[in-house]
Amino acid sequence: MTITITAFERSPDGGKGLARDTRVRWALEEVGQAYEVRLVSFRAMKEPAHLRMHPFGQIPTYEEGDLVLFETGAIVLYLAQTRAGLLPDDANARARAITWMFAALNTVEPPILDLVIVKFQEGDKPWAKERLPLVAERIRDRLVQLSARLGDAEWLDGAFSAGDLMMVSVLLRLRPSGILDEFPSLAAYVARGEARPAYQRAFAAQWAVNAAEPQAG
Amino acid sequence: MTITITAFERSPDGGKGLARDTRVRWALEEVGQAYEVRLVSFRAMKEPAHLRMHPFGQIPTYEEGDLVLFETGAIVLYLAQTRAGLLPDDANARARAITWMFAALNTVEPPILDLVIVKFQEGDKPWAKERLPLVAERIRDRLVQLSARLGDAEWLDGAFSAGDLMMVSVLLRLRPSGILDEFPSLAAYVARGEARPAYQRAFAAQWAVNAAEPQAG
Repeated sequence: MTITITAFERSPDGGKGLARDTRVRWALEEVGQAYEVRLVSFRAMKEPAHLRMHPFGQIPTYEEGDLVLFETGAIVLYLAQTRAGLLPDDANARARAITWMFAALNTVEPPILDLVIVKFQEGDKPWAKERLPLVAERIRDRLVQLSARLGDAEWLDGAFSAGDLMMVSVLLRLRPSGILDEFPSLAAYVARGEARPAYQRAFAAQWAVNAAEPQAG
Repeated sequence: MTITITAFERSPDGGKGLARDTRVRWALEEVGQAYEVRLVSFRAMKEPAHLRMHPFGQIPTYEEGDLVLFETGAIVLYLAQTRAGLLPDDANARARAITWMFAALNTVEPPILDLVIVKFQEGDKPWAKERLPLVAERIRDRLVQLSARLGDAEWLDGAFSAGDLMMVSVLLRLRPSGILDEFPSLAAYVARGEARPAYQRAFAAQWAVNAAEPQAG
C-alpha cells in the first residue's frame, strides 16, 4: 500500500532538515518503508482540503489507505509499532523507549520552541534581547538533566530507538543557537544520530526539495 | 502487582487538579486499575533517588514491578495499551486516538505553558503585561482550529479515548485565564470530561492530599 506524507513546498529553514517532515522521513528510512511525498504551500496548508487531514494546518501528515494521521510524534510511533526497527522487543523496554519520545516532545522541546518565539516571532519586540537569556537558561536546565541521564551511553536506553530519533531531532533545532555545543556529550549524541544512514537519506531527500530551486539574488 | 505513582506532597495549585498526577490518576480510574501514591516534596524531587526514576526531577512517575516510567503522556499511553477502556479496538481508530494525545501535548499545550511563563515565571518582568496578549493570541489560534475540528461532536474522534483525556487535561489549565470560556464548545467539551466518574474520583483523590493540611493563617 502506498504511503504518502506531506512536506513544505519550500521549507522556511531552506533545507537544514529542521522541518518536521524530516523526523517522519527518518523514521520511514529506519524501518525501510518506501514513501511518496506531496508538497504543500503555506497557503494550501490553511485550506479545507489540508485541514481535513491536519486540523492545525501543518505538515507532516501520513496517509496509508484509509488511515490519515497528523502529529509527528503519532506518525513516528505508528511506524515504530507497526514495523520493526525503532522499538525493542521486550515490553518494558518498549514502554521506556516511548517514554523518551514523550520526554523529547513535551519536556525538552517546549523551551526550545520558546527560543524560536523570542528570536523570530517576537524578535522585533523591545524585550527580545533581555528575555533571550532567560529562555536559554530554561533550555540549559533541561540539557543539564538530560546529559546527566545520558552519561557516557551511546543512546538513551539501550539500542537506538524512536525515543532517540525524536530526542536527536528536537536537539538539532538548538544547534544554530550554540547552546547544544555547550554540552559536548549531547552534541556527540546528536552527531551519532545524524551519522545514521537512515538519517542521511532522510536529510538528502528533504534537501533535494528545499535546495533544488534557484535562490533569489 | 502493585502500581505506585508519585505526586506532589503539596501541589502548587492547592488542589485544583492541574498537577500532572491528576492525568495519570484519571487514566488509572478509567481503566479500573487500583494504585498507590507516594508523595514527594520539592526537595526530594531533585535528589538522586527520585532522579533515577525521573531524570527531569518531576512528578508523576509510574512503578509496576521492574518497570519504571516517567512522562505523563507515556504513562497514560502505557495504561491505555495494556488495559481496556482508553483506546478503541480498531487499529486505525487507535492510531487516531493516539494522534490526539500527541496533539494535546505537543501542539496545544506548548502555548499554554507559555501562559504560565508570562504570568508566573516572568510575572515580575517589565514586558509581562505587554507580552501577555501575544501569548493569549497564539493560544486562541489553536483553540479556533481545535473547536473547528470538534464541531458539535461529543469527543474528538468517536468514543471517549486517551486522546480526549489528554486534551481535556491540557485545556483545563486554561480555565483560570478565562480564555477557555471564550470557546463555548470547548468549555462544554472540558465539562463533559470533568463529569466522567473516573475524573471525579481522580480529582477527589488529589484534593484529599492537597487540601487536607490546614492552611496557614
